[in-house]
Order: sequence, then C-alpha cells, then structure tokens
Amino acid sequence: MSERFQEWMKTTQVAVEAALAQHLPNTSQVPQRLHQAMAYAVLDGGKRVRPLLVFAAGECLNAPKNVLMSAACALEMIHAYSLVHDDMPCMDDDALRRGKPTVHTQYDQATALLVGDALQAQAFLTLAEAPAAAEIKLPMLQLLAQASGSLGMCGGQAIDLASVGLALTMPELEQMHRLKTGALLRASVLMGAMSGKHLSKHEIEALDAYALAIGLAFQVVDDILDASADSATLGKTAGKDAADNKPTYVSLLGLYASRQLAQKLCQDAHQALTLFGESAHYLHDLADLIVQRKA
Amino acid sequence: MSERFQEWMKTTQVAVEAALAQHLPNTSQVPQRLHQAMAYAVLDGGKRVRPLLVFAAGECLNAPKNVLMSAACALEMIHAYSLVHDDMPCMDDDALRRGKPTVHTQYDQATALLVGDALQAQAFLTLAEAPAAAEIKLPMLQLLAQASGSLGMCGGQAIDLASVGLALTMPELEQMHRLKTGALLRASVLMGAMSGKHLSKHEIEALDAYALAIGLAFQVVDDILDASADSATLGKTAGKDAADNKPTYVSLLGLYASRQLAQKLCQDAHQALTLFGESAHYLHDLADLIVQRKA
Repeated sequence: MSERFQEWMKTTQVAVEAALAQHLPNTSQVPQRLHQAMAYAVLDGGKRVRPLLVFAAGECLNAPKNVLMSAACALEMIHAYSLVHDDMPCMDDDALRRGKPTVHTQYDQATALLVGDALQAQAFLTLAEAPAAAEIKLPMLQLLAQASGSLGMCGGQAIDLASVGLALTMPELEQMHRLKTGALLRASVLMGAMSGKHLSKHEIEALDAYALAIGLAFQVVDDILDASADSATLGKTAGKDAADNKPTYVSLLGLYASRQLAQKLCQDAHQALTLFGESAHYLHDLADLIVQRKA
Repeated sequence: MSERFQEWMKTTQVAVEAALAQHLPNTSQVPQRLHQAMAYAVLDGGKRVRPLLVFAAGECLNAPKNVLMSAACALEMIHAYSLVHDDMPCMDDDALRRGKPTVHTQYDQATALLVGDALQAQAFLTLAEAPAAAEIKLPMLQLLAQASGSLGMCGGQAIDLASVGLALTMPELEQMHRLKTGALLRASVLMGAMSGKHLSKHEIEALDAYALAIGLAFQVVDDILDASADSATLGKTAGKDAADNKPTYVSLLGLYASRQLAQKLCQDAHQALTLFGESAHYLHDLADLIVQRKA
C-alpha cells in the first residue's frame, strides 16, 4: 500500500470520526444516558471500513465530499448498531468490542437494545438530511434499507444464528456472509458511487463484482484471524467461532486454503475495477487492506 | 361515533391488514423463520390506530390513497417493532401482547431482537418505495426517522426505563409520553397530511395541537385501562405499571381526575381541527375513539 493511500486513509478516518460526533445527538441532551451510550457505541473505535469504501467509490465518480460524508456516517451507524445488538447476551454474548467493554456490559441490556434501535433511526435521518437533491438521496435510502433488513444484514444474522452447530456447505456459508456483512459493504460501495451521479448498468455490475469479492474476502480473513490471532490484537474475543461451534471458512477449508482464497478474491476485486481506470486506486488499495489486515 | 365512521374504520383496518402482508417479505423466502416471526409480530392484531390517523389526516388534505397506505404501513411496522423490543425480558418482560404470546415467547429472544431490527428497516424501505415523488417522500422519511429515534420514541422509552420507581412530576410524565407514544402519533397525523401536499404553517400548527392532545389522551386512557381493566379485555397483562412501580397518570392524579383529563384533551383535539372544517370528521371521531376505547 502506497504512502498516498495510508495518508488518505488516516485523513478520512479522522474526518469521519468528527462527522459522526456531529451527526449523533448531543450527549448533554435528554435522555443523556442514551445519548452517551450511543456515542460510546459509535465513536473512538473501529477501522471505518464502510466509510472508507464510500469515499473510495466516490473518488471513482467524482462525488461531492459532503454527500459522501452523510452516506458514510449513515452506514457506520447501521454497522455500529448491528454490533451492539450482536454482542447482547441473547445473540453472541460478547463482553469485549474494539478493546472496550460492550455496550450492555458498560451500561445495561435495555440501554443496549435502545442504543441499537435509536442508531438505526439516526442512520436513516442522517442520510435523509444529506446535502443533496431528493432524487439522489431516495435511491440511497432505499438501498440502505434493503441492505440492513431481513434480505440483507438482519437476514444474514438470522441464518448465522440458525447455522450454529450445523455443517454448512460452501455455498450456504457464502450466502450467509453475502447477507450478514456483504450487503452493507456492497451498499457502501454503491452509495459512494451513487452520491455522484446516476450509475450506468456497466458501472453497477463492476462495482457489484468488486463488492462481492471484498465482502467475501473480508469474511474469509475474519475467520482466519479468529482462528489464528489473539484477543489483544483483535480487540475482541478470539477463537470464539470455534468455541461457539460456528461454521467458518477455516473449519471448512483449513487455514492454508482459506489464505489462498482470500488472495484469489483480492485479485477478483482488482479485476472488477478495470472499467474505472486510475480513478479506482483507493478501491484497489482497500481490497489489499482488507486481505492484509491483522485485526 | 357515527355509523359512517365505524364503517370507514373497519374498511381501513381490513385494507391496512392486506397491505401490511404485501409490504412484508414473503414468509416462504429465506430466512423463513425470521420472515414468519416478522409476520407474526405485525399481522392479525392491533387496533391500527396509527394507520387510521394517517388516513383520517389524508382525508383532510385530499391525499392519494396509495401514498397514504405506504405511510400507514411504515408507521405500523415501526410501532410493531417497538412492541416486540419493549416486550423483551431486558425491557418490560411481557409474555402476552394482543392476546397472543409475545415474539420472544413464541420464538426466542435472538429472533425477537432481529424481528424488531428488520421491521425498522422494512418500515423505511416501505416508505422510500411509496408511489410518490421524491420531494413528497423525503420529508416524510425525515419525520419518521426523527419520531422513531432518540429524540422521539426510543428516547421516550429510555426516559421510561430510567423513571421506574421515581416520583415524576406531571410535566416530566408528560414529556416522557410525548416522546414515547406521542412522537409516532404526531408523525402519523403529519405524514397523512403531507402525503397530499406541502403543508402551510397554520396547517402544521393545527395538526400538531391535535396530535399533542390525542397523544396525551391516548396515554392517560392507557393508564386508566391498566389500572381498571382486566388482562383478557386488554390482550396484555393488566396492572403491570403499578406492579412495576411505574409512574402513571392514575398514580399521580387518581382515576377520577384522570378521566376528566382525558375528556378535556379530547375537547382540545376537537378544537384544534376547526381550521379544516368538515373534512376533518374522521380525525374528530378518532379523538373520541381514543378516549372511549375499552382496550
């Protein structure tokens, strides 16, 4: 990864952090405890992969920065809410997230439930209020709702829950991840691109192929890290999938073949970007980042 | 209440039921269990107060029926999701809702959590896909997100949680309810009206005054019913607020003064409708219904 990319990533992450703080309700406003817990869940942590994808895709199509920022914040709020709910005792029952106690541990379960619910609403509000024409925002709102709902992220989580202890086939495992994490990553790429202009069929297909590849790569690497890294490096409990008897790429393919698959998916992602030429350089480097990350 | 009103109410409720079934993901689609639980949470139950308010307000401003229906379904999905989450063990821990086992009792807690999350996304999707121009839908989406979030419904629930066992003053109790149930009722009235045309300042003020009055009346009557009706009539556990040591209008004012307050609020609601003349007749009758209901 180039120095330019590293620089851009850092700058974007800092800007997103500031914008997220701005787009969340003020913590001094009633109900303060809820607002503090929302800020706790969203700020000061996370790699901001979805916002980075938004800005990288926006770069391809010359989208205005302020619209991209609203989309980025909306996506990150959806992602943060899903983590808060996912960590709750009735789901994954996790005590640690991004190196900090999870929201229900730090606050309580009822607050965690409401934090997730309110963050989802805040995500749609943030996007609806983005500084763009209604015709630009409406399809983005539609896409975000689809990607978050029962045929997207929530659906993937439901399949995940139902698959504990089952021997999934490779296509079943892929379908689960395509919904659980893939849908929101795809929405990030497409929403970034849509912030600029109405997309052609070819552009959508290319971005879709890219998003599919990095979405799966992201999950394969997640499984590799869960099986091989330690909790301190991950900032969350390592080895949890095996302990929970969850099907993973590593349990299906082994570590070696999983690493090869991640490399192959990274190449697929690069290939898909040909249409956009040099303007896709951040998307190109993000695919590398997703595969090479250590946490 | 007139026969015309009774007839209209029944027709609207039946039409809303059919539209809700249509706007929910098909239960034969993967993940089936989640989709079945979503349908279980939304269909075949409820008085559909919010959809009735949407259509009644739409009548005032001659709004197209198909746009009203999308708004009505979106609001009812938000309402249904809030009930599912509210009933969970970490919140109100209720086993009975609309005379049926609650979602986490019938299915499980993780499914209930995902049902609520997915219904919220489905609500925004339904509204975003409404058959209307982007300029009509966008302010409605904004209003729905505000009314559902931490400065609306979720915020009210957070205050409610925090107030258990506390001696709230009357203004504090009112503020809680204005957010917890009032915000979504207000959104119903305004979204119904906005489905037709851009509203004038006077129209918004009048509808706001109406919505405020029926919102509080709704809660006062809820408290009266919780204190005086039985579980079979209510379709949910009666006497729960007192048992949970929650502040209510009845605990603050007593039954007699609470009934008087409900009457007064009903008159306020009627008064607020003057601007709209005869076209507001359904809104007028709905105020009566809210105060006179027995469950």
